Amino acid sequence: MFLSCALLVVASTAAAGKPRARDLGIPFHGDPGPYNAITDVAGVTVGFSTIIADLPQHKAVRTGVTAILPRGRATSNQPVFASLFALNGNGEMTGSHWVDESGFLEGPVMLTNSHSIGVVHDATIAYRVRMGKPDPSGYWWSLPVVAETWDGDLNDINGFHVKPEHVDAALDNASGGPVAEGNVGGGTGMVCHEFKCGTGTASRVVTIDGHRYVIGALVQANYGVRSELRIAGVPVGQLMTQDLPGPISKDNGSIIIVLATDAPVLPHQLKRLARRASLGLARNGSYSGNGSGDLFLAFSTANDNASQATTAHDLTMLGNDQLDPLFLATADVVEEAIINAMIAAETMTGNDGYRAVAIDHRKLQAILRRYGRLLPAKH
Amino acid sequence: MFLSCALLVVASTAAAGKPRARDLGIPFHGDPGPYNAITDVAGVTVGFSTIIADLPQHKAVRTGVTAILPRGRATSNQPVFASLFALNGNGEMTGSHWVDESGFLEGPVMLTNSHSIGVVHDATIAYRVRMGKPDPSGYWWSLPVVAETWDGDLNDINGFHVKPEHVDAALDNASGGPVAEGNVGGGTGMVCHEFKCGTGTASRVVTIDGHRYVIGALVQANYGVRSELRIAGVPVGQLMTQDLPGPISKDNGSIIIVLATDAPVLPHQLKRLARRASLGLARNGSYSGNGSGDLFLAFSTANDNASQATTAHDLTMLGNDQLDPLFLATADVVEEAIINAMIAAETMTGNDGYRAVAIDHRKLQAILRRYGRLLPAKH
Amino acid sequence: MFLSCALLVVASTAAAGKPRARDLGIPFHGDPGPYNAITDVAGVTVGFSTIIADLPQHKAVRTGVTAILPRGRATSNQPVFASLFALNGNGEMTGSHWVDESGFLEGPVMLTNSHSIGVVHDATIAYRVRMGKPDPSGYWWSLPVVAETWDGDLNDINGFHVKPEHVDAALDNASGGPVAEGNVGGGTGMVCHEFKCGTGTASRVVTIDGHRYVIGALVQANYGVRSELRIAGVPVGQLMTQDLPGPISKDNGSIIIVLATDAPVLPHQLKRLARRASLGLARNGSYSGNGSGDLFLAFSTANDNASQATTAHDLTMLGNDQLDPLFLATADVVEEAIINAMIAAETMTGNDGYRAVAIDHRKLQAILRRYGRLLPAKH
Amino acid sequence: MFLSCALLVVASTAAAGKPRARDLGIPFHGDPGPYNAITDVAGVTVGFSTIIADLPQHKAVRTGVTAILPRGRATSNQPVFASLFALNGNGEMTGSHWVDESGFLEGPVMLTNSHSIGVVHDATIAYRVRMGKPDPSGYWWSLPVVAETWDGDLNDINGFHVKPEHVDAALDNASGGPVAEGNVGGGTGMVCHEFKCGTGTASRVVTIDGHRYVIGALVQANYGVRSELRIAGVPVGQLMTQDLPGPISKDNGSIIIVLATDAPVLPHQLKRLARRASLGLARNGSYSGNGSGDLFLAFSTANDNASQATTAHDLTMLGNDQLDPLFLATADVVEEAIINAMIAAETMTGNDGYRAVAIDHRKLQAILRRYGRLLPAKH
Repeated sequence: MFLSCALLVVASTAAAGKPRARDLGIPFHGDPGPYNAITDVAGVTVGFSTIIADLPQHKAVRTGVTAILPRGRATSNQPVFASLFALNGNGEMTGSHWVDESGFLEGPVMLTNSHSIGVVHDATIAYRVRMGKPDPSGYWWSLPVVAETWDGDLNDINGFHVKPEHVDAALDNASGGPVAEGNVGGGTGMVCHEFKCGTGTASRVVTIDGHRYVIGALVQANYGVRSELRIAGVPVGQLMTQDLPGPISKDNGSIIIVLATDAPVLPHQLKRLARRASLGLARNGSYSGNGSGDLFLAFSTANDNASQATTAHDLTMLGNDQLDPLFLATADVVEEAIINAMIAAETMTGNDGYRAVAIDHRKLQAILRRYGRLLPAKH
Repeated sequence: MFLSCALLVVASTAAAGKPRARDLGIPFHGDPGPYNAITDVAGVTVGFSTIIADLPQHKAVRTGVTAILPRGRATSNQPVFASLFALNGNGEMTGSHWVDESGFLEGPVMLTNSHSIGVVHDATIAYRVRMGKPDPSGYWWSLPVVAETWDGDLNDINGFHVKPEHVDAALDNASGGPVAEGNVGGGTGMVCHEFKCGTGTASRVVTIDGHRYVIGALVQANYGVRSELRIAGVPVGQLMTQDLPGPISKDNGSIIIVLATDAPVLPHQLKRLARRASLGLARNGSYSGNGSGDLFLAFSTANDNASQATTAHDLTMLGNDQLDPLFLATADVVEEAIINAMIAAETMTGNDGYRAVAIDHRKLQAILRRYGRLLPAKH
Repeated sequence: MFLSCALLVVASTAAAGKPRARDLGIPFHGDPGPYNAITDVAGVTVGFSTIIADLPQHKAVRTGVTAILPRGRATSNQPVFASLFALNGNGEMTGSHWVDESGFLEGPVMLTNSHSIGVVHDATIAYRVRMGKPDPSGYWWSLPVVAETWDGDLNDINGFHVKPEHVDAALDNASGGPVAEGNVGGGTGMVCHEFKCGTGTASRVVTIDGHRYVIGALVQANYGVRSELRIAGVPVGQLMTQDLPGPISKDNGSIIIVLATDAPVLPHQLKRLARRASLGLARNGSYSGNGSGDLFLAFSTANDNASQATTAHDLTMLGNDQLDPLFLATADVVEEAIINAMIAAETMTGNDGYRAVAIDHRKLQAILRRYGRLLPAKH
Repeated sequence: MFLSCALLVVASTAAAGKPRARDLGIPFHGDPGPYNAITDVAGVTVGFSTIIADLPQHKAVRTGVTAILPRGRATSNQPVFASLFALNGNGEMTGSHWVDESGFLEGPVMLTNSHSIGVVHDATIAYRVRMGKPDPSGYWWSLPVVAETWDGDLNDINGFHVKPEHVDAALDNASGGPVAEGNVGGGTGMVCHEFKCGTGTASRVVTIDGHRYVIGALVQANYGVRSELRIAGVPVGQLMTQDLPGPISKDNGSIIIVLATDAPVLPHQLKRLARRASLGLARNGSYSGNGSGDLFLAFSTANDNASQATTAHDLTMLGNDQLDPLFLATADVVEEAIINAMIAAETMTGNDGYRAVAIDHRKLQAILRRYGRLLPAKH
């Protein structure tokens, strides 16, 4: 019976002591921030609702909601400059038209499963309405950004198990600091390169003309076929051919990539960052299959007065010629965030006995070592 | 009490005998099809749920759902070529990324109010799921197209009064033939150029190299300020300055335009049609204000085998040099569909006593006559 | 013989006493600046080379070059924020990729005939090279913006009569103040709605939150069929059916629209302005035919320090909610600039006896008067 | 003196016996066609003009022109479906607006240096004019596709040494079969990842539902910094730090990628292919620096009747779900074509003594061997 199923909402805390990709000795380029997470961008908070339950008739609930708040509690009243890019549009990111048009992201970014877009959309509006004010532009409507990937192999996706309270919980528990990875939030039931995957994050610190800026990524990774998986340039997927979850390899997942930076970049420059998320994704072996919804959003927390619409403003921007370190760091954080998601994820059995196996850390280390690509590991 | 409020679902029937814009003698260019409606494109069906109720504390429900099914009952299993264009993206049209990427519209187009996107999205997926099959491409997910305009002046939009059963009803009652206009479906509580407005439709028949094609539009019109209203080129809005619904004229509505044709045009050509919806809109006086979500979708019912993904296909296309009659007709149907919405709409009092007045047919005729722009009227 | 043909370069001066559209009593909306020209935007200069000559064998040279310098002499070293929009891309605007990517226009905008894009491109680079410095970003290359419309009916377009010296002259003689219209510069041999047409300009002054801003347009108008011509909303083209230049009406011309403003708008906001040029064009009866290259570029002279790439900057922007007056003014200036081009143009006979007749001012006035749309004329 | 300088036009012949990347044992994925070149797509021909001369005052000419004809001699009269994508628009590709709008490429693709766009543009039109017919759509104008990368370090780019005869020669000598690589044609003076580079090509054969299709790429590679160079996943650039051509590593080159296929894909599907060129580029270490003009064009030689504008047509298309092998092959051919360009290029000294060194084949092989990534070499 449904009533006997406990839906467990797991709070957003990074599991203590769990190794991340760098801990295993996987080499990456560049210097991460203190948490190596999107939350290294000051003000950004992340919250999760993770929904795991077993249902009758071999059905399972393995899904959730992730909330990314660009300015934490101030998010709704202080939009951030933003832009987006669709590498392959087989996915949903509501609110895209207005982000693209306005240059602003006016609320949180919500991530969930493909068939829970609606409930999360409504609940995010309701959350906003409960705050009792129009948006900063004076309008009384909301066009929330809700994106998705498909977890229908592990999760009873047509059971519509995400409820408004899960949305509220993800928004309410959002915090800075370490970010949980793997089987959490919207990433709970996600699979990439046919290994268990999910939520991952990473960050880089760059110095441009003497100023220090941070760029971070959070991914909900659910894309890719095994044979194409590359880690640190090594064709791992052709060497780890066991434990495929299904008989046919098809790139019918997706990846949502959210980029945050405190660098003062304007919307048209953020579009350039968003486009470069493709490059980090490619390093790991994506060919952006037809079934993949590869949608990337980038925002900047600088220029916190940019949305004050009633007067002219003083803004700061980087010159286009100063952007190269951010472009490179974009590729770097995306590459690492995906591998972090894969390393953190744990084997999961879901709907109708479907089983997605976590990548074996030891085997992976052995392969990388064989190809001269393993650094001294901390684990 | 809420429970005492009867939520009335009005079936989709065009009110008999109600005059349309042409009946009043307003001149338009081109030859319409038999219904002068989007349903002149063979196979297209349209359904509505109109939700009208009075609530305590001066609140009112004036909203609804419109469903456009490109191929009627066959819609879900036989996608149509489609594309879209955002003249001003202050609005939502879910599914846009996939329409743009794939070149297909894989289900109905649903129209509702801004804050009911979520419920309609979920319910449209659920409707599809109940049909018991994956989509024709073999995927088990849906990215439904749901678009909106804002009716928060007339309607208690944050009461979330659209329910899944309204969505089902709009889908179930969709039919060909005459299409109801004005205060129906998603257009129930809409206002344009500060007159009561809503749903409107029109069509044109064009002949290209001896072949007869039909193009139709259905609009949910909720945009524009009074002073800019032009009808048949006459600056009507500067002459009909009474009965403004509010103290401040601001273009913070929106317009969703759906174009259908049976002409064999490919997705990149449909994008060209969608872009030209702007031109018809401009004739009536839109400057596409910042607050306006002006999103246009175009689809073609030709090439009914185009989505059969497992083999190569035989398709038909028009040459680019043959498209001019369709381009002109696009502007024409959009111009007329908007005026049809305005002519059909009836004065409505809604939320907190807000009152949107219908345009006075006799006064309008008098003005057009004065400017030499009235044809002999049928009413 | 070619050598006996004098190629006449006419300097850029507005013909004294020549009536413009407003002088004839044609009604337009909004308040123009002192010159009712793009040069009302402080700093903008415009130069022309007009090339007219008769050749043997009934060939004729009727073409030229127009140069628009956003900051006059400072143009090359002080880029302006810019963006662009293609309503119908059957035309060329070199440099588009970099304008779109960078958000900057880094030099002048050059307009010429379709088959002289190359020579103008090379000569504009050479002009830049002679100035002896890299571009402000430190690069030693140029991606000049050169756009075109097709004058092959009046002009021996495949004779390639535009030479580097014409380019230099247009750049050198650029000035502020009144702008010549009609058969001048790149517009020399252009035809629109099957009347002689060419170069036109207009401007508007708008006030936003107490600040005064100017927006101006310069068009090279060569588009449209007669039957669709509307002036001030009156279907003039259906009433002036004489003097068609050829047997077949086909929209195979083009229109280039350049918008300039001193309002502090960012690149993504300039894209919104560029898109709205479509709306002014539509008012005059364009359906943007397949053969029409309808390319629109918008730049802002505000934020003159925006391109200093080596440090962060202080910029000013308008809020999105403040843009409506600029959006409306965009439609207004485009509408008027096109009619100005048509009113200023004079009947021209060209290649192989092709004759494009100027619109008859008196007849036009009579028609507008009949439709209640003529203001008291100054001419 | 200029007159004493012999400008050498080298015909298009692949140097016999010169090793290509595969010959050295560099591993790539997938099965190439017989030439492992874009000419494996039936009908595609490629021609080059290579211009090498020494000038007084330490100036040098090291540049050229590449012509790619989608259907060989039939190219002008039989357009191909095409689309494009700009990963970073700091470059020129004339004709982009019309390719994007029309879905057709109506002539050859011409590649040259940044400051010779104009002459190549004019000469390509003149070439077409000499053929004596309007384009297949009936228009008498041309919007040729001319793209560029910057060779100003090796080449006296502001000397404008490309002449119309070089354009004619490239068009005239275009042929199928083996394609010259490295320092030839438009690629003559190009440098990538701070090694000498230039022109490269590769192809793949894929089987989709029993049909065999070919996809090929030709690149003019001039992008990237040394430190980011990856070959076969190995961070080669961090291990080969010698022989940098200049003191500062900056990604201010560019890469033009042309994709050809005989698979029946429509324009909106070709856009998807073009976008995926990014993924192959990323594998080799591009972060698409601000200074890089990364413009990608894709065309299909299938549907040879698609451009016949006067009647409706019978076309063939692949379903979206069938595209994955082409998507993967796109990344594969781009990756290999770039490395082929680098392997084929020879050390060159140019303008002001600037010297770009070819990558050392033996050192590269040694590195790849050390990282377990060298196959048995044929050289």
